Amino acid sequence: MTIAEGHGRRPGGRSARVRAAVRAATLSELAEKGYTALTVEGVAARSGVHKTTVYRRWGGVEGLIADALEMASEEPWPIPDTGSVEDDLRALARLVVTGFTDPDEGPVSTAFIAAAMQNSAAAVALRRFFASRHDQAAPIVTRAVARGELPPGTDPVEVVRAAVAPIYYRLFVSREPVDAAVADRAAGAALAAARAGAL
Amino acid sequence: MTIAEGHGRRPGGRSARVRAAVRAATLSELAEKGYTALTVEGVAARSGVHKTTVYRRWGGVEGLIADALEMASEEPWPIPDTGSVEDDLRALARLVVTGFTDPDEGPVSTAFIAAAMQNSAAAVALRRFFASRHDQAAPIVTRAVARGELPPGTDPVEVVRAAVAPIYYRLFVSREPVDAAVADRAAGAALAAARAGAL
Repeated sequence: MTIAEGHGRRPGGRSARVRAAVRAATLSELAEKGYTALTVEGVAARSGVHKTTVYRRWGGVEGLIADALEMASEEPWPIPDTGSVEDDLRALARLVVTGFTDPDEGPVSTAFIAAAMQNSAAAVALRRFFASRHDQAAPIVTRAVARGELPPGTDPVEVVRAAVAPIYYRLFVSREPVDAAVADRAAGAALAAARAGAL
Repeated sequence: MTIAEGHGRRPGGRSARVRAAVRAATLSELAEKGYTALTVEGVAARSGVHKTTVYRRWGGVEGLIADALEMASEEPWPIPDTGSVEDDLRALARLVVTGFTDPDEGPVSTAFIAAAMQNSAAAVALRRFFASRHDQAAPIVTRAVARGELPPGTDPVEVVRAAVAPIYYRLFVSREPVDAAVADRAAGAALAAARAGAL
């Protein structure tokens, strides 16, 4: 191994720069064209990385999406901490609505869900992504239990799932519109169930 | 128009038989091979209907899936009526779990959700399918309100959405396993929220 090659594999070195360029290009292509139109050629052209390099390191479209999802998992989610579990859950549910209705963010988020329907590498990456999201959001509930707002023994991740699930159900299953009112109702129902000790 | 052609367009005539054969073949192909491997050629071969006929009448894979979904919408859902809203909602949620975990039914149900991610005709058909499901399930809640089990003014479809949404969230978003316990918890949370007047 030459010094240059060794340097290339250091974090922040050439290899990391190539990866960052390819991930950024993948996200831009997803945002502009959606999942079904994503191609290795398109990502290669946009990133300036040769397509044989993209094929060698990422394998194909599935690998590109899985890697972009891994990057997304590492990004911290701006979890609300208002001092009130009701306000926190509402803000959380509204974050989800925004994540799918925002003109820039929405197509990328949708592409991740769609990609997981098509191939198992993306499905595994999506599972990891949501496990990370659940972990990040759990303190909303543990803090509420500590403050006496929710009963001891409440399952934090189950409350988070209940607060966001109706939004995803409308988006990808029943295909109904979502807005802030939908978010507020989902959060309110999750809170009522948690207060009753059902979660 | 000849008598034979007129006959062919009657319900139960040749045209209806062709449609039934193509729909059945579409469902069998989906069950065996999944959405991504569905082809007009495969459906034509299995149904014994010439592929030019399939292309002319259904347009392509999207049309085949939309038509199969329309058939599924027309099938009555065995909505439980036990006399108890708690038992009814649990049975409903368990029906959903079974619909996706059953070895025969699961791949077809999953294919419908996946198809809607890929094209708008399937998405429209899926929206109609779930609107029909919501209408069919709503009496679980209206009967409970009439019996005094739930507060007047409870939104029937909102309770149905809440009872099933966490199952779909695990299946297609967070990619976590589902079973009867997951169904029972989702139904229990929806019921608690409805009792509290949050739905």
